[in-house]
Amino acid sequence: MKILVVGANGQIGKHLVSFIQNHDQLEAKAVIRNEKQESFFKDLGAETAVIDLEGDVESIANAAEDVDAIVFTAGSGPHTGKDKTILVDLDGAVKTIEAAKMAGVNRYIMISSFDTTRQAIQDAPRSFAPYVAAKHYADEWLKGTDLDHTIIHPGALTNDEGTGQIAAAPEVERGEVPREDVASVIVACLEKEETIGKEFQLVKGDQSVQETIDSL
Amino acid sequence: MKILVVGANGQIGKHLVSFIQNHDQLEAKAVIRNEKQESFFKDLGAETAVIDLEGDVESIANAAEDVDAIVFTAGSGPHTGKDKTILVDLDGAVKTIEAAKMAGVNRYIMISSFDTTRQAIQDAPRSFAPYVAAKHYADEWLKGTDLDHTIIHPGALTNDEGTGQIAAAPEVERGEVPREDVASVIVACLEKEETIGKEFQLVKGDQSVQETIDSL
Repeated sequence: MKILVVGANGQIGKHLVSFIQNHDQLEAKAVIRNEKQESFFKDLGAETAVIDLEGDVESIANAAEDVDAIVFTAGSGPHTGKDKTILVDLDGAVKTIEAAKMAGVNRYIMISSFDTTRQAIQDAPRSFAPYVAAKHYADEWLKGTDLDHTIIHPGALTNDEGTGQIAAAPEVERGEVPREDVASVIVACLEKEETIGKEFQLVKGDQSVQETIDSL
Repeated sequence: MKILVVGANGQIGKHLVSFIQNHDQLEAKAVIRNEKQESFFKDLGAETAVIDLEGDVESIANAAEDVDAIVFTAGSGPHTGKDKTILVDLDGAVKTIEAAKMAGVNRYIMISSFDTTRQAIQDAPRSFAPYVAAKHYADEWLKGTDLDHTIIHPGALTNDEGTGQIAAAPEVERGEVPREDVASVIVACLEKEETIGKEFQLVKGDQSVQETIDSL
C-alpha cells in the first residue's frame, strides 16, 4: 500500500514517512516543497514528489496516480503570513482532496486541528481564528465528498518522544500530544479500515494506540 | 419584500439601500457593524441591525427572521489584515448563508469577485490570491445549498456615477463597473425570479440594466 504524504517535511510528516518505510506493508511517497528537502526521504528509501501546494491540482493528481491513500499533514506554519493560511491550510487541502478524486484514490486521512467546529472559530483568539476557520472549511469540504476519510483532531502538538499511550474519541479533554504519537495513530488508521468515516480528537493518555484505535 | 443588506455601509451597500428605499415594492434592513453607521440609513427610513460578522450565526438569523431575501455585499476591505479575509469574506458569507437557512429565507444574492474559479486563485498575484480563494469558497458553499441564489461577479469597481449601461453574461471581457450600477443590477435581480440559479460577470457596457438582466 503506497501512501502519499502531503506535508512530508513537517514534523509529523517526517515521523510518519519514517514509520511507513519501516512498515512491512506500507511505502511512502513524500510530497515536499523543494528538492533541498529530499535527502531525509532518500535516506529512508522513500520516493519523493516536489509539489507546490499553491500550484495546480493536476500536479498533485499526477503524484497521486500510483498511490492507495493520501495523508494531508501540511500546514502553512507559524512563520508565514496569514495569507498562507487560506492558500495552504484550506486551498492546499482542498486541492489535495480534488486530486484524490481525479486520481481515483479513495482513502484520505486529514490531520486537522483539535477543534474545528463553528463555535471554535468564534471562541478562538482573533490571531488564531483564521487558522481554525481554514481547517474548519477543509474538514467540511472533505466530509462533503465520497472519499473514505478519517479526520484526526490532535491536541497541542509537542516534540516530546512518543509514548504510544493516547486517548482518542469524538470528544476528549484538551491536552498535549507528541507529534510522534500522531504519526503512530495515522499508521494505525491506515491499517484499519474501520477508521473510515471516523473523526476523533487525540491527546496523550493511558491506552495503547492499537487498543484506542480498535475501540473507536 | 424586505431585503437584508449585509455590508450595508459599504459603497455598493449604500447605493443599494438607497435604491431599495426608493422602490415601490422593496424595503431594506441594513446590517451594519456599529451604531455610528446608523444615521445614513435612518435618513433613508431604513431599518438597521447592528451585527458583527465575526460573531455567531444566531444573531444574523435573528435579523433575517422577517426578511424575504438576503444580499451579501460585505467585504473585509483593503485596510484590514489578511486574517480578516477568511473571517469576513469567507466565514462571514457562510454564516449569512447558514443564517438564511435557519431563518427560512430562500432568496440569496451574493456579490462575488469578477473571477472566483480555481484557475483564478492560481493566476492571481499572491497578495490578491487569499481574497480570490475566500470568495471562491463562499460561492462554492452557496452553490452547495438549496437556496434560490444569484451570484454576481462584478469587474473592477469604480466610484463613477452609474450609467445604467452594462454588459453581463456568464463570461464577459474584464473591465470596470461603477458600484452604483452593481446596486442597480442587484435590484433588477430581486425583481426578477428568473435570475435564480444564475451566475454572471458584470462590467459596464452598452445595454440597459433591464434588457441585460432579461437576456441572461
